[in-house]
Amino acid sequence: MELIFLGTGSGVPSKKRNVSSLALQMLQERQATWLFDCGESTQHQILRTNIRPRRIEKIFITHLHGDHTYGLPGLLSSRSFQGGETPCTVYGPKGLKAYIDISLEISGTKLTYPLKVIEVQEGCIYEDEIIKVEAIALEHGLESYGYILEEKDLPGELMPVKLKSEGIMPGPIYQKIKENESITLEDGRVIHREDYIGPPKRGKKLAILGDTRYIESLAGKIRGADILIHEATFAGKDEQLAYDYYHSTATQAARIAEQAEVGELILNHISSRYQNEAVDDMLEEAKEIFPRTFIASDFYRHPVRKMEGD
Amino acid sequence: MELIFLGTGSGVPSKKRNVSSLALQMLQERQATWLFDCGESTQHQILRTNIRPRRIEKIFITHLHGDHTYGLPGLLSSRSFQGGETPCTVYGPKGLKAYIDISLEISGTKLTYPLKVIEVQEGCIYEDEIIKVEAIALEHGLESYGYILEEKDLPGELMPVKLKSEGIMPGPIYQKIKENESITLEDGRVIHREDYIGPPKRGKKLAILGDTRYIESLAGKIRGADILIHEATFAGKDEQLAYDYYHSTATQAARIAEQAEVGELILNHISSRYQNEAVDDMLEEAKEIFPRTFIASDFYRHPVRKMEGD
Ligand SMILES: [Zn+2]
Ligand SMILES: [Zn+2]
Repeated sequence: MELIFLGTGSGVPSKKRNVSSLALQMLQERQATWLFDCGESTQHQILRTNIRPRRIEKIFITHLHGDHTYGLPGLLSSRSFQGGETPCTVYGPKGLKAYIDISLEISGTKLTYPLKVIEVQEGCIYEDEIIKVEAIALEHGLESYGYILEEKDLPGELMPVKLKSEGIMPGPIYQKIKENESITLEDGRVIHREDYIGPPKRGKKLAILGDTRYIESLAGKIRGADILIHEATFAGKDEQLAYDYYHSTATQAARIAEQAEVGELILNHISSRYQNEAVDDMLEEAKEIFPRTFIASDFYRHPVRKMEGD
Repeated sequence: MELIFLGTGSGVPSKKRNVSSLALQMLQERQATWLFDCGESTQHQILRTNIRPRRIEKIFITHLHGDHTYGLPGLLSSRSFQGGETPCTVYGPKGLKAYIDISLEISGTKLTYPLKVIEVQEGCIYEDEIIKVEAIALEHGLESYGYILEEKDLPGELMPVKLKSEGIMPGPIYQKIKENESITLEDGRVIHREDYIGPPKRGKKLAILGDTRYIESLAGKIRGADILIHEATFAGKDEQLAYDYYHSTATQAARIAEQAEVGELILNHISSRYQNEAVDDMLEEAKEIFPRTFIASDFYRHPVRKMEGD
């Protein structure tokens, strides 16, 4: 799993930062890419990466402000133009379906693949054998969500060295041990699976949040995330502005990360009023509170790792 | 007047050519910029020019395919975000208003300036003291227009040398001569304006066409344009493809230019299937038919001049 930040600005595109979009590459896990938000020109940013539009399986929209959505019709059309055939599902707040439908319809666009638009509410919005996605409500003056991704734990591996040392040689018997809580060998011995299997491989947990004011109670919902991606539209000194515009500061994002005891914090959605040193300062102010903080820029890549000591 | 090509590709953005948009800078004539089409990322392209979004007075949409419209909501929003206060009018086919309205409404966008959307039909769609705009129907499988811009002629200048040589000295009398067909001087002489005024300054004429199949009868409608901007999605050898997809070839565009006896032809809307030499070849094939042909690329600038000998 790898995060690729495609647009890390706020409100309007600038020369340095495009409007919001973030890709989560899950090539090994599911041969797919998931997108979070899709501001205008996201497909143009994608042209400069190794992301393949036809591999985009799901798109999660955090809220319907234009800087998070205006790239959707173009991306969905181009995915079709380029011959995409596999289904694509878009998740987001109420209103998303009407917006997508009318944009595609008025432009006479007929997609070559099945498109599903799911308007979400708080709670579990997707689950399969390997991952679960939950939407949590944020505070942004209009419906805005954070998406919590939780990989399922994988069962531990059989311990062949231990098995062999006890005279149990490789063969179909290994599969049997794996699949049953306990079995009886031909020699009468009873084998309990838990004694011959290593610890489960814990799944990773990501919290990818949309635009939001500082919400103190948020920490409880994202506790233990390996990575928290939180907006930091403003610097700490502009806390009042952040409040007035339904946004957060870098300091506030760090406070959430600390309270939630996450593995790493990545600051995102940076206003273009901050440039160069001012951006460095935002990172520093966050690190004082939560040392494992990073700040995103367009095309920044960040590997998704399980938190240490976990 | 100057043309700035912002997007000269076809269908989907490529690394070299963005989707359609063309700016007509009329800074001296009316302190304003007009846009023709507004594909996704037009506002990003504008960031790399000296065009100021708040100066964009009118936007003409040729047809509703996404590669000509998906940049509208973002551009209109950013014009607002950057404090635009002067009115903006968007012209285009039926359906345009619903698309713009729903895109702005669902994203919660409130513009800081008055926006008017005018759904056009064939005929004169705008006229003021200095310019007239006419829409002509094209053939593209859905409603598609060309826009013919005609500057009004300016009256000729008084000829002071001639007046002085006949003893008529500068003063309020000059204004009188200008404003009346004929006047009588104090000494009884009758002065006919036409004898003392140079030829009128002819206005320029531009034909900016949307996507279209080759239409032989088109030439009559754009006769005498100083500049014709015509799509050339395909090369001459791919005429059947052009027909099937409701597009034109470079050769066909040149044929129209020749028939219409225009001043200059600029080829636009080039498919990304043609690169480098293939694009040069398209220009050459057009030049063989119509020598004063140019081919647009993103950020190409072209001055608008009155045709020679006119
Ligand atoms: Zn927002
Ligand atoms: Zn078209």
